[in-house]
Amino acid sequence: MNSPTATLLISCPDRKGLVAKFANFIYSNGGNIIHADQHTDFAAGLFLTRIEWQLEGFNLPREIIGAAFNAIAAPLQSNWQLHFSDTVPRIAIWVSRQDHCLYDLIWRHKAKEFTAEIPLIISNHPDLQEIAAQFGIDYHHIPINKDNKIEQEAKQLELLQKYQIDLVVLAKYMQIVSQDFISKFPKIINIHHSFLPAFVGANPYHQAYERGVKIIGATGHYVTADLDAGPIIEQDVVKVSHRDNVNDLIRKGKDLERTVLARAVRAHLQNRVLVYGNRTVVFE
Amino acid sequence: MNSPTATLLISCPDRKGLVAKFANFIYSNGGNIIHADQHTDFAAGLFLTRIEWQLEGFNLPREIIGAAFNAIAAPLQSNWQLHFSDTVPRIAIWVSRQDHCLYDLIWRHKAKEFTAEIPLIISNHPDLQEIAAQFGIDYHHIPINKDNKIEQEAKQLELLQKYQIDLVVLAKYMQIVSQDFISKFPKIINIHHSFLPAFVGANPYHQAYERGVKIIGATGHYVTADLDAGPIIEQDVVKVSHRDNVNDLIRKGKDLERTVLARAVRAHLQNRVLVYGNRTVVFE
Amino acid sequence: MNSPTATLLISCPDRKGLVAKFANFIYSNGGNIIHADQHTDFAAGLFLTRIEWQLEGFNLPREIIGAAFNAIAAPLQSNWQLHFSDTVPRIAIWVSRQDHCLYDLIWRHKAKEFTAEIPLIISNHPDLQEIAAQFGIDYHHIPINKDNKIEQEAKQLELLQKYQIDLVVLAKYMQIVSQDFISKFPKIINIHHSFLPAFVGANPYHQAYERGVKIIGATGHYVTADLDAGPIIEQDVVKVSHRDNVNDLIRKGKDLERTVLARAVRAHLQNRVLVYGNRTVVFE
Amino acid sequence: MNSPTATLLISCPDRKGLVAKFANFIYSNGGNIIHADQHTDFAAGLFLTRIEWQLEGFNLPREIIGAAFNAIAAPLQSNWQLHFSDTVPRIAIWVSRQDHCLYDLIWRHKAKEFTAEIPLIISNHPDLQEIAAQFGIDYHHIPINKDNKIEQEAKQLELLQKYQIDLVVLAKYMQIVSQDFISKFPKIINIHHSFLPAFVGANPYHQAYERGVKIIGATGHYVTADLDAGPIIEQDVVKVSHRDNVNDLIRKGKDLERTVLARAVRAHLQNRVLVYGNRTVVFE
Repeated sequence: MNSPTATLLISCPDRKGLVAKFANFIYSNGGNIIHADQHTDFAAGLFLTRIEWQLEGFNLPREIIGAAFNAIAAPLQSNWQLHFSDTVPRIAIWVSRQDHCLYDLIWRHKAKEFTAEIPLIISNHPDLQEIAAQFGIDYHHIPINKDNKIEQEAKQLELLQKYQIDLVVLAKYMQIVSQDFISKFPKIINIHHSFLPAFVGANPYHQAYERGVKIIGATGHYVTADLDAGPIIEQDVVKVSHRDNVNDLIRKGKDLERTVLARAVRAHLQNRVLVYGNRTVVFE
Repeated sequence: MNSPTATLLISCPDRKGLVAKFANFIYSNGGNIIHADQHTDFAAGLFLTRIEWQLEGFNLPREIIGAAFNAIAAPLQSNWQLHFSDTVPRIAIWVSRQDHCLYDLIWRHKAKEFTAEIPLIISNHPDLQEIAAQFGIDYHHIPINKDNKIEQEAKQLELLQKYQIDLVVLAKYMQIVSQDFISKFPKIINIHHSFLPAFVGANPYHQAYERGVKIIGATGHYVTADLDAGPIIEQDVVKVSHRDNVNDLIRKGKDLERTVLARAVRAHLQNRVLVYGNRTVVFE
Repeated sequence: MNSPTATLLISCPDRKGLVAKFANFIYSNGGNIIHADQHTDFAAGLFLTRIEWQLEGFNLPREIIGAAFNAIAAPLQSNWQLHFSDTVPRIAIWVSRQDHCLYDLIWRHKAKEFTAEIPLIISNHPDLQEIAAQFGIDYHHIPINKDNKIEQEAKQLELLQKYQIDLVVLAKYMQIVSQDFISKFPKIINIHHSFLPAFVGANPYHQAYERGVKIIGATGHYVTADLDAGPIIEQDVVKVSHRDNVNDLIRKGKDLERTVLARAVRAHLQNRVLVYGNRTVVFE
Repeated sequence: MNSPTATLLISCPDRKGLVAKFANFIYSNGGNIIHADQHTDFAAGLFLTRIEWQLEGFNLPREIIGAAFNAIAAPLQSNWQLHFSDTVPRIAIWVSRQDHCLYDLIWRHKAKEFTAEIPLIISNHPDLQEIAAQFGIDYHHIPINKDNKIEQEAKQLELLQKYQIDLVVLAKYMQIVSQDFISKFPKIINIHHSFLPAFVGANPYHQAYERGVKIIGATGHYVTADLDAGPIIEQDVVKVSHRDNVNDLIRKGKDLERTVLARAVRAHLQNRVLVYGNRTVVFE
């Protein structure tokens, strides 16, 4: 199972024979499927699938797999992505002052819970510089305020290019990323510290406390131009009671934020997330 | 433990000696406390407590316990309620067309999960008449629409008085109760089929599906004039995935609605819920 | 989606091309797959899949689907089952004195959460006769003790044959079914009121209380000759605390038992459960 | 709330007037109670309580609080402990090769989730030396095998004395501590990587996989002479499916182990855990 694999993520209008067509493409070229999952959204008339197979023994050279598959996929009006397991994605983690999600992602990376490189940390504060140093990751302090946002985002984009970043993870970055930035770099996962769509925006734990909820949550989602309204990848919750003040919610929430963000990032990096409309299919 | 008990629910500004004062009141009159719990909301400067003791061996006759306690409580600016465990509360269950919460409450009542009488079911539809008959409960069909709401609510109030109802349980009643009604009969518990404050109002499962959430919830709360914004007593959630369409959310949600509503009603009937501001303390 | 469907549940040694082979069988005969899921157990070298397709438009008549598929499946050393969605399975519910799982299954059946007929209830006590009558289900009281077990099991088997039962659901039956009975009628689902393998055998809530656990559970599983050791279909848990005495565990446990048993039965009836060794794949 | 507090943990045979007696002791000496919780185990005839009050304004000097309270407590046959919030407990973390619980405890300590000092790490392997160095904690490598256990445990005890350790946390130590050691140093919290009492002993994730469970758990408990049978402080679980192989169980379990161990340690350090028999009351 450790030989390199290729993964296709495909969505297309539902019709007869799709499973057979896609499976035949792999099989007729000598591929051994090690994971296949599909989902039909009958309301949307959409077929969505993930197929992963071993490259060892596959007859097509990598460079032409895409073109070969497109000959089948194009007539089906399908959208598809092709990923190779040995192409290691590069992540930039963006933080503010809180360290728990950063530590957690670094620890999971070291523990090989996901395959990626983490060459870059960007922050609007200098506070976590030391952690970056401890683990040998470059840290760029780019303070952001209303007046300098446009030029600072330009610097951020430049860094993403320089470090050849594939995915930005907002690990409690606590700043709104501009629509313009997102249009230029759309692969961004955020952890929002509430059970979205409850408590959009600032200070969700304070909002939750005010509302007197008995459960709090966290949401890992792709960032879109609408604040906290992007496609949800993962959510989880924890019970709270009248005993818990705002600080307790924050403390309990941190455990949620860590695990929910990590699961969302891991699913994305394993090419298990397919976005359509404002929803996701997360293949198991 | 089966001898009758008295329960005090007290809230007052926090100050030294409250636990001692209240406990002494019971002890000096020969009472045996079988449950005591307290909570201090430091932000609000409020002390909240529940004390339950056996009436057997208590020196004060029931009729004067309130007055005697008030001599202590009034100088402390406290709000308090006194309940006797052998005064059985009377519940009216209001339903629409769905039967799952109704069946569930009736079953739990039969299973003695809570102590109450259920003499009355009110519905804006005739559909569940048969279930009422099956269990020997009076069923009143009071259709409600925009034009007749005022007069029909008058009929509902009349029924509550006639049946000497202490608590109205909206078991998927699916209608908004008017502010005027609530001011006249404020003891109402509702089950809202979402994890409030997400998806207030109509069709929360459709809203949840549209938003693409990965968890759905249900909320048991007291009804106030603000729609779906009253004090929350109980919430619970269940995971969903892309496999679940709206009908699946509805099906999974029913299990939540049953248990969450039952827990909220049970906590209320056991005098374990203290409301302050828009929050609740639910004593364990 | 409401036209009848056929479902294949297949397990076979893993090898290249299985997804393609099975999908081609459906597609080449004009079938429209509406659900397909597969799993490879690499440790066991086993491929397991569930494929469901619409019979409308499928070129093979029902009677020969099995034979036609076997021509493909036999050379692959596969085990397979074929089910038609309009062949409604017949369930016998076995109970003792507790009514919660029985009520729940009947309510879900009425609510069309699963497709089945429930013509028969068997009990070793007369207590739930009335519920059976209420819903028009035949109730057979077959008292069991050490001395009459063999002959009473013979009566039970006779009833299962007479009522053409496909599945026995032990809904808190509280009796051990003999190995001999199981060998003659192996389709039995049981709800065990603990988080197996903790607290096998009698009085699991008392055992749980004695051990001082902070969580209790329930387990829906197929019955095998080893007591409480059959393949697990579904489990769930709920938190408890020092506040909960044995009766509280029993009360909280009932909610678990209802939902866990219902989910296990529903998964089985939807042909989503594949047993291999002492494990299950539960296709989503 | 940040002024120092005293906390009494008391258990005694249940009788009338206990709440009043204990509250009066605090109040008559000018103390302001900031937390009080009690529980009566009616089956055991035992009253258990936790009372925390501010030392500021309390009339008794610290040195004599114990003696003064004992004058009340001794006639009641009570067991009691007295703790001061500014007496910072000292923890030794014992590890083997896995780093996740160690990292987590260190991070929570830095985040001030609990108040303690962590001057000492003991391990039977050298692997985590570097982490200790990173955070400035002394690391002692004490390899253990069958032949040297007695002498190595002597060294461990010596270190605990030298570092004035109050609590040993077995953060995946993976070794059995001898009965003799426990009798000499009984304050030990362990994280067991299963939902006890399921899967006692070695390799619980392998055992869980073999049994085909649908949920895995972790248990934080005090260590006693009976392996994995000590009083449980905290448990939590996570769902698994047929998709999860043993490595997945291990990965998912690590998240549980981290949070369950941390909650158990935190509850202990906040003097919220009262052990009686083989059970705990964990005051909220």
